[in-house]
Amino acid sequence: MKEIRFSVAPRATGHRANNKGTMRWNELSTPALTVDADVLERNLARMADYCRSRGLGLRPHTKTHKIPEVARMQIRHGAIGLTVAKVGEAEVMCGAGLDNILVAYPVMGREKLERLAALALDHSMLVSLDGETVAEALAGAARQHGATIGVLVEFDAGLGRCGLEPGPALVALARKIMQLPALKFRGLMCYPGQIGGDGEARKRDIVRVAEKVELALEAFRQEQIPVEIVSAGSTPSAFQSHQIPGLTEIRPGTYVYNDINTFYQGACSIEDCATRVVATVVSTAVAGGAIVDAGSKTLSSDPLRFGPASGYGYIVEAPDAPIVKLNEEHGYVDVRRASRALKVGDVVTIIPNHVCTCVNMHDEVFVLRNGEVEGSWRVAARGKIR
Amino acid sequence: MKEIRFSVAPRATGHRANNKGTMRWNELSTPALTVDADVLERNLARMADYCRSRGLGLRPHTKTHKIPEVARMQIRHGAIGLTVAKVGEAEVMCGAGLDNILVAYPVMGREKLERLAALALDHSMLVSLDGETVAEALAGAARQHGATIGVLVEFDAGLGRCGLEPGPALVALARKIMQLPALKFRGLMCYPGQIGGDGEARKRDIVRVAEKVELALEAFRQEQIPVEIVSAGSTPSAFQSHQIPGLTEIRPGTYVYNDINTFYQGACSIEDCATRVVATVVSTAVAGGAIVDAGSKTLSSDPLRFGPASGYGYIVEAPDAPIVKLNEEHGYVDVRRASRALKVGDVVTIIPNHVCTCVNMHDEVFVLRNGEVEGSWRVAARGKIR
Repeated sequence: MKEIRFSVAPRATGHRANNKGTMRWNELSTPALTVDADVLERNLARMADYCRSRGLGLRPHTKTHKIPEVARMQIRHGAIGLTVAKVGEAEVMCGAGLDNILVAYPVMGREKLERLAALALDHSMLVSLDGETVAEALAGAARQHGATIGVLVEFDAGLGRCGLEPGPALVALARKIMQLPALKFRGLMCYPGQIGGDGEARKRDIVRVAEKVELALEAFRQEQIPVEIVSAGSTPSAFQSHQIPGLTEIRPGTYVYNDINTFYQGACSIEDCATRVVATVVSTAVAGGAIVDAGSKTLSSDPLRFGPASGYGYIVEAPDAPIVKLNEEHGYVDVRRASRALKVGDVVTIIPNHVCTCVNMHDEVFVLRNGEVEGSWRVAARGKIR
Repeated sequence: MKEIRFSVAPRATGHRANNKGTMRWNELSTPALTVDADVLERNLARMADYCRSRGLGLRPHTKTHKIPEVARMQIRHGAIGLTVAKVGEAEVMCGAGLDNILVAYPVMGREKLERLAALALDHSMLVSLDGETVAEALAGAARQHGATIGVLVEFDAGLGRCGLEPGPALVALARKIMQLPALKFRGLMCYPGQIGGDGEARKRDIVRVAEKVELALEAFRQEQIPVEIVSAGSTPSAFQSHQIPGLTEIRPGTYVYNDINTFYQGACSIEDCATRVVATVVSTAVAGGAIVDAGSKTLSSDPLRFGPASGYGYIVEAPDAPIVKLNEEHGYVDVRRASRALKVGDVVTIIPNHVCTCVNMHDEVFVLRNGEVEGSWRVAARGKIR
């Protein structure tokens, strides 16, 4: 395994090494977000291997980690490019020397479009969109800067978020883009975010998405318009992507770290969850409960969307002690059925419900190997909301 | 009204003035968090006036805004000190020249306790706690630094989060603190966060909290232990604080900005909501819906806890178009019953469900007066999770 590049040495973070000159996970000041380097590397390799074996391009969504060092690891594993949601995220990635960026978001607003066009002067940029207003604004900004921006036209594969119905309207928008200056129609995109849950529901969802993709492709075939890129994918459905004919690439994000929602969909094991929040028990004054120093400003308040129980994170050391409620800085742990007593000062690790929104709460991530802190990464694209 | 001090000029943020050399709210690059300066000032004055008229100290919780400039405005309005949840937040406030800080959190862990003790060398610091383990760790750090730290012993007023039952255990912990070196017992604290909702439920909650406070005070009277500080309060119950006899101070946080959960509890009007997220409609491709560029990484996914409807924020320009779902960067607006059409490029303002977790998503806040951007504040204590 290759050496990992860190943005911050652990000493520089205010954390201090122990008397052996090293630092264990449970010596971190809490709350602290950690990533297990070996699990991360295994997750990266598994997805890259799958894509390679199925002839699919991998364009991972970096919104999960927001870290250029992790993006570089993804490229090293064979990713064909990166996905971001925001122009500011693209700026961070490009600023770190990365290229081939899809902004999978209909960028609207002069200031952002100008920054995007500026990036496109010396980077290969793609943007997804689903309407003429965004297309015209994007073309205007690109032309003004003398840049060319690639466009994926988005269709709705059943989520009901963005995207046109596959069919004539989709072709019409593609034709419009071909006529606009400074834009280049590159292909189609959908986000099948509704594919979720374990078993039969997921199988049905995948069949339906395949139908939508086929409808979209058929509309372009009829008009004899070549479609270079067909981009889809999500973490829960990633390893079934080959069951959707016609895709050229997928954009999973969560797979780098995984989380409890992914686990409860049967799309990873607990051991595949690379990211854990290290937290300390700070109060046991109220009977039947314990309070940890990780609340909604550490874990995010994203709910558990799958699985047998409700809760706000999975305590690895006490899985039978659910986190039943969050305030901003307090996690309420129900210890009434816990096989392990939690006492004040105990340090535990929590796998978050939704790792993307959890990571977004943190300025830095500590990288562990065999439980030892090797260094940390700055979450450089966190807060780049525009 | 006094001049506001800004941390960042609007030009420095990447935003550009229009050709009149000014900038209107709807010219901000989106999503953007804004605060109306006049509403903020009115909220600050109203709470300060109430406390003054009832002889209550005001120690506002700065977790809502996390901005030293706003904390200074609170002090100017007569606050006796500030409340924070984290040592890192205290460092930001002290670093900006503020003093008299209550860390309303049982701080646990050597690294944080040492930083807290260092602050206490030249600042007046209070900490709340509810157990001997934290008390002993705090005393050890304070003694090592040659600092003295004031302690409020926390009791549970019904929320069931932190705090001992009012009674003998509370007195025993106070006695323990009196015996520990470098600590000074200053009084009692509770957080009546369960007081919520409009009308009768709130009245009953307040009576119950008053009973808990009286039980706590009675236990100390019986032992003839003087209690200098009795700290309670929250925004929804702030203006009923005088109905809880024995309090010396309150710690509301949300009142500076207010939010939709506060509104639906009858504790503020829509006009009292100082904070709005400016967002742009980016897609209307799916029938019956519109997508705005404010999702859970902009608004936070904190749910609506009160009121007639569910939803993730209140669109001021289209209150009959609820935000029914959030993804990280997408707000799903249901426009089926909207009296106003939303089209791509429209700029709207959203009052968040929970302003504290929303502010926590933003590195800067733009300050408006009469709709014009006067400057911006850096959310300096955002991300200070330790």
